[in-house]
Amino acid sequence: MNSKAAAATAPVEERASTRDDLLTAASELMCERDTLSVPIIDIAAKAGVNSALVKYYFGNKSGLMRALLHRDLAEAVTQLEALVEMDMRPTAKMRYHLSGLINMYFKYPYLQRLLTTTMRDETEEVRSTMIESYIEPIHHAYKRMISDGVAAGEFQPVDYKFFYFIVIGACDQIFSSRDVLKYMHGVDRIDDNIRRSYTEQMIAVILGGLTART
Amino acid sequence: MNSKAAAATAPVEERASTRDDLLTAASELMCERDTLSVPIIDIAAKAGVNSALVKYYFGNKSGLMRALLHRDLAEAVTQLEALVEMDMRPTAKMRYHLSGLINMYFKYPYLQRLLTTTMRDETEEVRSTMIESYIEPIHHAYKRMISDGVAAGEFQPVDYKFFYFIVIGACDQIFSSRDVLKYMHGVDRIDDNIRRSYTEQMIAVILGGLTART
Repeated sequence: MNSKAAAATAPVEERASTRDDLLTAASELMCERDTLSVPIIDIAAKAGVNSALVKYYFGNKSGLMRALLHRDLAEAVTQLEALVEMDMRPTAKMRYHLSGLINMYFKYPYLQRLLTTTMRDETEEVRSTMIESYIEPIHHAYKRMISDGVAAGEFQPVDYKFFYFIVIGACDQIFSSRDVLKYMHGVDRIDDNIRRSYTEQMIAVILGGLTART
Repeated sequence: MNSKAAAATAPVEERASTRDDLLTAASELMCERDTLSVPIIDIAAKAGVNSALVKYYFGNKSGLMRALLHRDLAEAVTQLEALVEMDMRPTAKMRYHLSGLINMYFKYPYLQRLLTTTMRDETEEVRSTMIESYIEPIHHAYKRMISDGVAAGEFQPVDYKFFYFIVIGACDQIFSSRDVLKYMHGVDRIDDNIRRSYTEQMIAVILGGLTART
């Protein structure tokens, strides 16, 4: 029995679990190796399944990477949209978001690189999906959060389009330049203490800047 | 006569100019194509020379990339070190630096990606050179600028190690995620107006945050 047939006849839970296992394996390998270039064969080996199952579940490696982006980002975007609607001071809301953003990159340090690479290398259709599913909702949330903050007299009127780049860059850089921490500061791993300190300092600067009076 | 012999017997100015032409060609192609993966043959063709001259001047493509990092970064680092020593208010100094950093990425939008990739993929020896030549001097400058600013009562005491990541990320992100500008906002090229606006907004947030009172 080939692997496609094996997958097709497996119980539903087992299939869902194999699919998740492959995503988890890809995610863990990209974290461990600090690179997006992880061979399918290594992903399958880590998940303990035949590498043909990558083709079965995801079509190809690009499909697996898109499914991983969806796994890592879709819920975060939904949570951000819910946060925007919450009855909370704009400053508290933004603080909550910035802290959550660092937590997300802490869990998935490859995430921003994977999104950038997918946007750059994939088809027009995939790119449109990325924009609609992840980039646009974040922009809408920032537009709304900043205009609410300005209306409440808490924020200065920063352009949300530029704020997106400032925030994403400031939150992601420590994760995408991990080698600087490693070779400049002898810090091999971003642990929970570093995550907490970085979050605190980043919020002091970014939120301090957003709320500063000019 | 092979190209190595041709280069070796060429007048000194011509050799210097061919070397510079290859660096310029590599830089321009990486800007145009928004990628670090530019074939040697394309670089040589754009410079109008035989591709064997890349080997002659730089050993291999990695050598060319390291020479390009040196061309783009060495002077900027020297200027930063001079800025630190200048008789100027800490806030004005930091504003000047942040604006210069954006100008540098504006000129060489591949620069941060090239530095990160070189740190990750090159030998221990090359990595040490990168740290000593570029990363360490920037850290020293930030340490000094922030402590001067705190002493002058202008800055809050932000950790310079974290400030490095916040600033580099915030300044670079618009250039390394150019596709977001392109496909989300229909902006095909970061022109001088966008550069100016981004600089203004980034300084409002980052410098506003650094100077904010807690």
